[in-house]
Amino acid sequence: MPSQNDASLPFPRAALHAGKGGPWRDWQIEPGTDTRVSLKKLKPDAKPFSSGSKATDQAAVQALAEELDGLQDLFYADRRFKLLVVLQGTDTAGKDGTVRGVFSRTSPLGVHTVGWKAPTEVERDHDYLWRIHQKMPGAGETMVFNRSHYEDVLVPVVNGWITPQQTAQRYAHINDFERLLAETGTVILKFMLHISSDEQRQRLQERVDDPTKHWKFSFGDIEARKQWVDYQRAYEALLSTTSTPWAPWNVVPADSKTHRNLMIATIVRDTLKALNLRYPPDQPGLAGLRIE
Amino acid sequence: MPSQNDASLPFPRAALHAGKGGPWRDWQIEPGTDTRVSLKKLKPDAKPFSSGSKATDQAAVQALAEELDGLQDLFYADRRFKLLVVLQGTDTAGKDGTVRGVFSRTSPLGVHTVGWKAPTEVERDHDYLWRIHQKMPGAGETMVFNRSHYEDVLVPVVNGWITPQQTAQRYAHINDFERLLAETGTVILKFMLHISSDEQRQRLQERVDDPTKHWKFSFGDIEARKQWVDYQRAYEALLSTTSTPWAPWNVVPADSKTHRNLMIATIVRDTLKALNLRYPPDQPGLAGLRIE
Repeated sequence: MPSQNDASLPFPRAALHAGKGGPWRDWQIEPGTDTRVSLKKLKPDAKPFSSGSKATDQAAVQALAEELDGLQDLFYADRRFKLLVVLQGTDTAGKDGTVRGVFSRTSPLGVHTVGWKAPTEVERDHDYLWRIHQKMPGAGETMVFNRSHYEDVLVPVVNGWITPQQTAQRYAHINDFERLLAETGTVILKFMLHISSDEQRQRLQERVDDPTKHWKFSFGDIEARKQWVDYQRAYEALLSTTSTPWAPWNVVPADSKTHRNLMIATIVRDTLKALNLRYPPDQPGLAGLRIE
Repeated sequence: MPSQNDASLPFPRAALHAGKGGPWRDWQIEPGTDTRVSLKKLKPDAKPFSSGSKATDQAAVQALAEELDGLQDLFYADRRFKLLVVLQGTDTAGKDGTVRGVFSRTSPLGVHTVGWKAPTEVERDHDYLWRIHQKMPGAGETMVFNRSHYEDVLVPVVNGWITPQQTAQRYAHINDFERLLAETGTVILKFMLHISSDEQRQRLQERVDDPTKHWKFSFGDIEARKQWVDYQRAYEALLSTTSTPWAPWNVVPADSKTHRNLMIATIVRDTLKALNLRYPPDQPGLAGLRIE
């Protein structure tokens, strides 16, 4: 269970729940409810952020992506905060697609991304958060994680490589670690891209049938698919335990790619707006300076 | 106050208190006592580990330094654990001297050291444990910190740069961070090198009087000396709050350099011995292999 001790955040707490008045509210996991999240009750084909028209939604994603570019510029100038966006989900859930769809208009100067793979030998020689900490965004930067430290409470759990006690220990480590980050100015947005088993089957089949997508296919995906139920369970435990007041989880119904991008872009935009970003004050003597 | 939840350590807990039956016991801060440590009661000129003869003690330090070399070799081969040695103390407390005296016989292959300075601009753009985490020892390695993350609850506290609430937050961050390290196999030995104000005056005077020691002298040391009482108080709060079951503090009476080295070398040696280190099992097919 996450520690419910109140964290002292150097940014408006509202930034983490910026859209909670709207359709967002049902999809953010309430911290500390102690209730096991049920992914079955959260429908992967829901479209809570949709206008009802796909064309309108697609145009909205484009507009949001461009709005994000401006906000990111201001975020970079402001330099009071850091932004970490965590994208998790099973194979084919759309993590790459989200990076492309939501962050394709922002300057790579301010937005960085890491795709996490299995740890190297040197990384395995350290604690599992060692390599993660190194990639944290600096002041004014945005970092997007394609997979993350949450793989360390998914793959080993599903495969029985760690005990329930070790799993609980890792949940606590992760909550403590994210509390450090949040209390020192990192806004953490965690998205679980939620697709149905049927949707995954179709997307994997597409990869098999389309030679230009073969590079994305791995036989390991077939093995992981056999563990579908176990992964859903591991995700439910993870969402219940690591949704904290300082870094809550958002479940994103992601059978529709357009809706997925729309929802994530909206939440990122609303978060940045809630931070009351500002350009830093002018340097003394700058006003009215004549360059000669 | 440190969280007293029991940590689950992958090494014998005795390693952290290897010498507690002996003279060590009075100098390790009991975790979670909630009692403010009084440095006045811990005499900087005490010599609990001394034989009574300086020549015997010096010979013992030499012998220990060489014993450490062998143990470190085994530690490196064993590769189940990591060792972090933290040296803290006011200016002239003898941190450099400890590194030289205790770790001068060990191979630099397995023993690394970092002298922490004021953070760079890039480091300040991240949380204050970001740079620390990067320097953590890998499996089989020993890392000696000359100053450490504890500077972040000393300098800003004494100078009033952070509020009591922020200070408490940092203690919690540090305890959580060290718990992660300990639970993932890092044995943490923390030494506070404890000298008297008189001893510091003499050592600073020596630096002023001896041109070959001028490079070690900084006018900042004079400023810090004026804050002696405040630093002692900050150390007392730090020792009370961050001595945890998974990473207890040891106060080292350090007016005598020989005794300081003797005590630290003994504790490091006893710790390594308590780990029941072993060479890894032979690779299959190696026994009896004939190279042709």
